[in-house]
Amino acid sequence: MKVLEPPLIIVNFKTYLEATGRRALELAKRCEKVAKELRVNVAVAPQAVDIAVIASSVSIPVLAQHVDPHPPGAYTGGVTVEAIKEAGAVGTLVNHSEKRLRIDEIDEVVKRAKSAGLEVIVCASTPEVAASLSALKPRFIAIEPPELIGTGRAVSKVRPEVITDTIKLIKQVNPEVVIICGAGITSGEDVEAALRLGAQGVLVASGVVKAKDQEGALKDLANGLLRGAKSRP
Amino acid sequence: MKVLEPPLIIVNFKTYLEATGRRALELAKRCEKVAKELRVNVAVAPQAVDIAVIASSVSIPVLAQHVDPHPPGAYTGGVTVEAIKEAGAVGTLVNHSEKRLRIDEIDEVVKRAKSAGLEVIVCASTPEVAASLSALKPRFIAIEPPELIGTGRAVSKVRPEVITDTIKLIKQVNPEVVIICGAGITSGEDVEAALRLGAQGVLVASGVVKAKDQEGALKDLANGLLRGAKSRP
Amino acid sequence: MKVLEPPLIIVNFKTYLEATGRRALELAKRCEKVAKELRVNVAVAPQAVDIAVIASSVSIPVLAQHVDPHPPGAYTGGVTVEAIKEAGAVGTLVNHSEKRLRIDEIDEVVKRAKSAGLEVIVCASTPEVAASLSALKPRFIAIEPPELIGTGRAVSKVRPEVITDTIKLIKQVNPEVVIICGAGITSGEDVEAALRLGAQGVLVASGVVKAKDQEGALKDLANGLLRGAKSRP
Amino acid sequence: MKVLEPPLIIVNFKTYLEATGRRALELAKRCEKVAKELRVNVAVAPQAVDIAVIASSVSIPVLAQHVDPHPPGAYTGGVTVEAIKEAGAVGTLVNHSEKRLRIDEIDEVVKRAKSAGLEVIVCASTPEVAASLSALKPRFIAIEPPELIGTGRAVSKVRPEVITDTIKLIKQVNPEVVIICGAGITSGEDVEAALRLGAQGVLVASGVVKAKDQEGALKDLANGLLRGAKSRP
Repeated sequence: MKVLEPPLIIVNFKTYLEATGRRALELAKRCEKVAKELRVNVAVAPQAVDIAVIASSVSIPVLAQHVDPHPPGAYTGGVTVEAIKEAGAVGTLVNHSEKRLRIDEIDEVVKRAKSAGLEVIVCASTPEVAASLSALKPRFIAIEPPELIGTGRAVSKVRPEVITDTIKLIKQVNPEVVIICGAGITSGEDVEAALRLGAQGVLVASGVVKAKDQEGALKDLANGLLRGAKSRP
Repeated sequence: MKVLEPPLIIVNFKTYLEATGRRALELAKRCEKVAKELRVNVAVAPQAVDIAVIASSVSIPVLAQHVDPHPPGAYTGGVTVEAIKEAGAVGTLVNHSEKRLRIDEIDEVVKRAKSAGLEVIVCASTPEVAASLSALKPRFIAIEPPELIGTGRAVSKVRPEVITDTIKLIKQVNPEVVIICGAGITSGEDVEAALRLGAQGVLVASGVVKAKDQEGALKDLANGLLRGAKSRP
Repeated sequence: MKVLEPPLIIVNFKTYLEATGRRALELAKRCEKVAKELRVNVAVAPQAVDIAVIASSVSIPVLAQHVDPHPPGAYTGGVTVEAIKEAGAVGTLVNHSEKRLRIDEIDEVVKRAKSAGLEVIVCASTPEVAASLSALKPRFIAIEPPELIGTGRAVSKVRPEVITDTIKLIKQVNPEVVIICGAGITSGEDVEAALRLGAQGVLVASGVVKAKDQEGALKDLANGLLRGAKSRP
Repeated sequence: MKVLEPPLIIVNFKTYLEATGRRALELAKRCEKVAKELRVNVAVAPQAVDIAVIASSVSIPVLAQHVDPHPPGAYTGGVTVEAIKEAGAVGTLVNHSEKRLRIDEIDEVVKRAKSAGLEVIVCASTPEVAASLSALKPRFIAIEPPELIGTGRAVSKVRPEVITDTIKLIKQVNPEVVIICGAGITSGEDVEAALRLGAQGVLVASGVVKAKDQEGALKDLANGLLRGAKSRP
């Protein structure tokens, strides 16, 4: 079932060579294997170029990393909601700190994705921005302090207040939002800590993609998710 | 043979619904059919999402509509030279008027594509910009006055001086460049006129994608290319 | 007293020739004259280049049209909070539909302006975006549907629900915000209608700048503000 | 005489606090003093906000750091050619590595500035980009490798081939262009080296703005310019 449900792990492939083309497909299959074996929700977010092949090869949810706010039409070089949907994606990340949009564009993406039946995970760099974006009524918000991305220093350990502040501020604006977190997450302990703080999932990238043993890294994260889910507040 | 050689027709699928997903594949096959039957060079430029499936299904050259200037790595939402190459593209359009880049970015794309063995067709909006971009030594430049794109009023008919000026200015800077043109081209006559003016190919989009009879439209363009090629200056 | 208080009229000079340089100063003086004569709050937002001369010549509040989110430093071509403050501005517009920013940038501008003691009027294109931006805690939000800007068709007359929806949605997120509106406002009736709907001021541009009789146009708007203020809900 | 003539030193104030408002005016006056005493051409490029006051207070040429490509009109937050001209600027930098534009925008700025009788100094990050931009026929090109900006490691000393390559490539495209250089230049020796390599001037920023003794730093640079001008190739 390709449904995006918390608690979950989203693996962002970015444009890493280790997660491009053939290697992207292999990584997606490892994610699927771990998801099945440990019965955890794992979604993958490959590059636009790799969505179609992966979505037709694995049974876990596939997300785009970004979509443009415009409709189909005369938009050379664009990535539309319609195109990723037909390619098999169930949703998309948007406004990642490496691909930020204007707020009117995020609003448009949320509306267009919803009306196409796609999930949207809107990324935010600070608790204030997260609260602000929750007013646009996406189902998911991912809080990721950009200064920790790719550092191996987990937001859930070194800046736990970012997660708790985000949860507090979002609840005041839109209590329906599912809040996940990312940045620096590389171990099961990091994931467990995130869930204990109230997050309902994590966004990981280099911690899995760059790991020598991608499957081992995923299992560690998945076990952390299982432990964290039991002890959620 | 998936080689990009003039004289040629490049069909830009943009993000038109009529050229997305399954319909993109059908259109690419029609382009392949016409290319074989009439022995003309036709290349297709589908959306990033559709490159892999199309490149593995047709024998004509497939181009990306855009690539980002950055290398592989932590660039969420990016489209890299490496990813489109592995997906089967032989090259890419860049700096289309619907997806313009800064000049330092175009320089980076040209260099990165060349070193990966990919073709680059750099688009330019005016003869002066075309001449300027030719100094970056791409193999192809496509001149397209944005005000005529999608109008059905062919640059080769209503603004022939744009083509001749572009050829003249580029020759002063870089005589090696293959010059093609686009904007408003919908008929074989438009293509023939373009080649008579000295262009070595055309870039078309809505004229084919939106045609009720896509194959018929392509044949008309292809016949114009054949006539024009005979009478080139 | 150069204090920004509702109910108010903000005149955005944009980069109209009729509101550049010497003519900008003349227009600012007309705004000052009407403000004094009719005892209404009028603020002017000239181009960055014209702030210093105007701020030292009139007694009404002067706003920048935009500031960049970055601090002082190695930012060639930037407009900083510090520079507009020293030039005499009491605050700034930000995120106008003609100069949109990313949400993280708007967040930064709001924080930097506040800590410098400057007012911020954050512009928003839709009620949803307005509500979202109100979570960043600016003192003012200006709702302006871009499709009506410069049309002479007043938002308060042809799309009154945009104003009432904005007020409703913002109240849920941040009831402290002062809400003003703009787009197409050219007459006192338009202003009166805006205040009757609950707005606490208006943002005008071409309606004054392009008027043959700028002073007359301002007086008409000012009288509308006075009438509307009496009958506010 | 406010004319921009090589050999020259252009002092870019960026948005440094040490070169904002009152301190910008003081620095401009120091530049004027040194220009007169040593009889060297010095131009200043203050922030947009400070142009008018400085231009009316000093007799040396004042440049903007950036202008937008659009005409006057409904462009909130813009900086137009018309506005900086009326404020007293004799020209503008454009495409600085801290404020890069698309090539079609640079083309527009060059054309608009020329037709308004303003000088344009187009900045370029690499020799290839410089050659490319010279095809747009600006009077000045400034080559500045971004990685050396603000480092105190002078391009003319640590990367002399950047200057000589730029001169060589530009001469092939447009031999009329006046070529200046910048990045890391802090001493008279750096300036002298630049002129010996064939540059006709320098662009400096932190080397002057951040100097404890701004006047002393300027005199050192000016003396280097005089020495270099004598020994030009």
